[in-house]
Amino acid sequence: MMERVTPLSAEHFSGAIIMPNLVPPVDNLERLQVYRDQINVAKGDTVFDPLMMLFFRNYSEAELAAAREHIFGIKLYPAGATTNSEAGVKELSAVEGTFKLMEEMGIPLMIHGETHGFVMDREKEFLASYEYLAQKFPKLKITMEHITTRDAVEMLDRYENLYATVTLHHLIITLNDVAGGMLQPHLFCKPIAKRPEDREALLAAALQAHPKLMFGSDSAPHPISKKECCGCAAGLFTAPVCLPTLVELFEEHGALDNLQAFVSGNAQRIHNFTPLSKTVKLEKVGMLVPERYGEVVPYRAGETIPWAVTSIH
Amino acid sequence: MMERVTPLSAEHFSGAIIMPNLVPPVDNLERLQVYRDQINVAKGDTVFDPLMMLFFRNYSEAELAAAREHIFGIKLYPAGATTNSEAGVKELSAVEGTFKLMEEMGIPLMIHGETHGFVMDREKEFLASYEYLAQKFPKLKITMEHITTRDAVEMLDRYENLYATVTLHHLIITLNDVAGGMLQPHLFCKPIAKRPEDREALLAAALQAHPKLMFGSDSAPHPISKKECCGCAAGLFTAPVCLPTLVELFEEHGALDNLQAFVSGNAQRIHNFTPLSKTVKLEKVGMLVPERYGEVVPYRAGETIPWAVTSIH
Repeated sequence: MMERVTPLSAEHFSGAIIMPNLVPPVDNLERLQVYRDQINVAKGDTVFDPLMMLFFRNYSEAELAAAREHIFGIKLYPAGATTNSEAGVKELSAVEGTFKLMEEMGIPLMIHGETHGFVMDREKEFLASYEYLAQKFPKLKITMEHITTRDAVEMLDRYENLYATVTLHHLIITLNDVAGGMLQPHLFCKPIAKRPEDREALLAAALQAHPKLMFGSDSAPHPISKKECCGCAAGLFTAPVCLPTLVELFEEHGALDNLQAFVSGNAQRIHNFTPLSKTVKLEKVGMLVPERYGEVVPYRAGETIPWAVTSIH
Repeated sequence: MMERVTPLSAEHFSGAIIMPNLVPPVDNLERLQVYRDQINVAKGDTVFDPLMMLFFRNYSEAELAAAREHIFGIKLYPAGATTNSEAGVKELSAVEGTFKLMEEMGIPLMIHGETHGFVMDREKEFLASYEYLAQKFPKLKITMEHITTRDAVEMLDRYENLYATVTLHHLIITLNDVAGGMLQPHLFCKPIAKRPEDREALLAAALQAHPKLMFGSDSAPHPISKKECCGCAAGLFTAPVCLPTLVELFEEHGALDNLQAFVSGNAQRIHNFTPLSKTVKLEKVGMLVPERYGEVVPYRAGETIPWAVTSIH
């Protein structure tokens, strides 16, 4: 799977946050380095920087000091909230020492922010935890990953140290697309796509390149056998269609001038980093999305997107 | 499929409403009689009465007069609201002549009450149409089929001529069971399972055998190839487990005394009819639900239900 999908992410992007929810989780430096090396082999000679994340647990100061220069941040998963998150955090109050250390050392915290409540309410219910952390650790840079609700968008303006990413698909689909007609397992993801008013708020914030909002694909490949079955896995594989679809979306809304900031500029400024240089050119020549990449069905499989990447350097 | 599933419904029940959303729809007497005869062949010598429904369209007085003694009621589908409903009604106002005739002739109206809105709001949005019909045709007996929301339960007490059915599965599952963990295509149905507070209101009304609420299984078999796929069909096949599960549920809540009214008595009183005589005995001996009946995966496949039907006469 890694050999199949890494080149597809590496092709269009100069870097990507590499999520640590593997089995076992990437929660020590040794495992992180092995994983990074595997990705660097899989990407071949493409210009691409895997921005490594540690899986959140209680870390000692020595562990964080050793990891610091090798990581982009630490990703916190509530236990059981999503794929391979069983080893996640059960009680935020039990891990505050690590938050404090991260704040002092300037290590960003990324969070999969969902409770274990009713599926449509899980993100909204988690917002109080974001507020608590943002207030208690005012120098800790906190990113609400893959937000899906209007409430989360509104929270961006209330706490200086609170940021967010949003996926491509949550700008486009709602629960109607997943379960309003026939059930569409290939559009099933976590957090689940929400209501029309949520999608509208996310899209509006993206189109204006809200300064605290960053693009994050959350591209998640699963083999077709795990998607079209009884008990299908959560995640959309979007990497090959992210840029063409974003250009289509931003053009449709007359917001192309904001696309660079949304996809790249905001993240560079927020995280104060300079990515590897890569220039991607898109032209309106049409891209027929393959039905499959190996065993993986991509988002928009079989569709023709008006825009295509025509050169990369 | 008919040969496979008819005996399974016929075994535990002395009759069942036979829904008319076939391709093509059962919207004339000839087709209805052919369908009824096929069911009677498929049921074999089991005591079972197929209570036939016509697919709603504009009918003439002569058509209704001819159909009247052969039908239990007429089922209205908003066009495109569910499986095989493309031929359904686009505008209620365009078919009021038929409502008026049905009211005069005492023919019950059953409705799949959903709009084309956001999937979690469709039933709630349709409630205004129920109110309109209940007020405009006060002698027309209207059944809200397979209700899924607290709002629909509350509406029962507001209009004398408004009744409802509820399925087994909507007493038990919410959207969390369908899409809160892995995606479960075998729990996908229309209307989709709603929120916890909706399920609680439905269950409370069922357990007290609310006098205007009737059990209606909406048992809908689909071959596994239409359930575990890309774009899965809506419907649960519950017929073989309805009675054992209802006994389990009503016993758990100390409401066994109300089960007979919920499953049978209320419908007999509301529709003023006497079903074929059948006595079904359940005992706490355990029922292992088969993984499949032919190509159909039943609700609770592979589970053991404490109660089982042990004799029928």
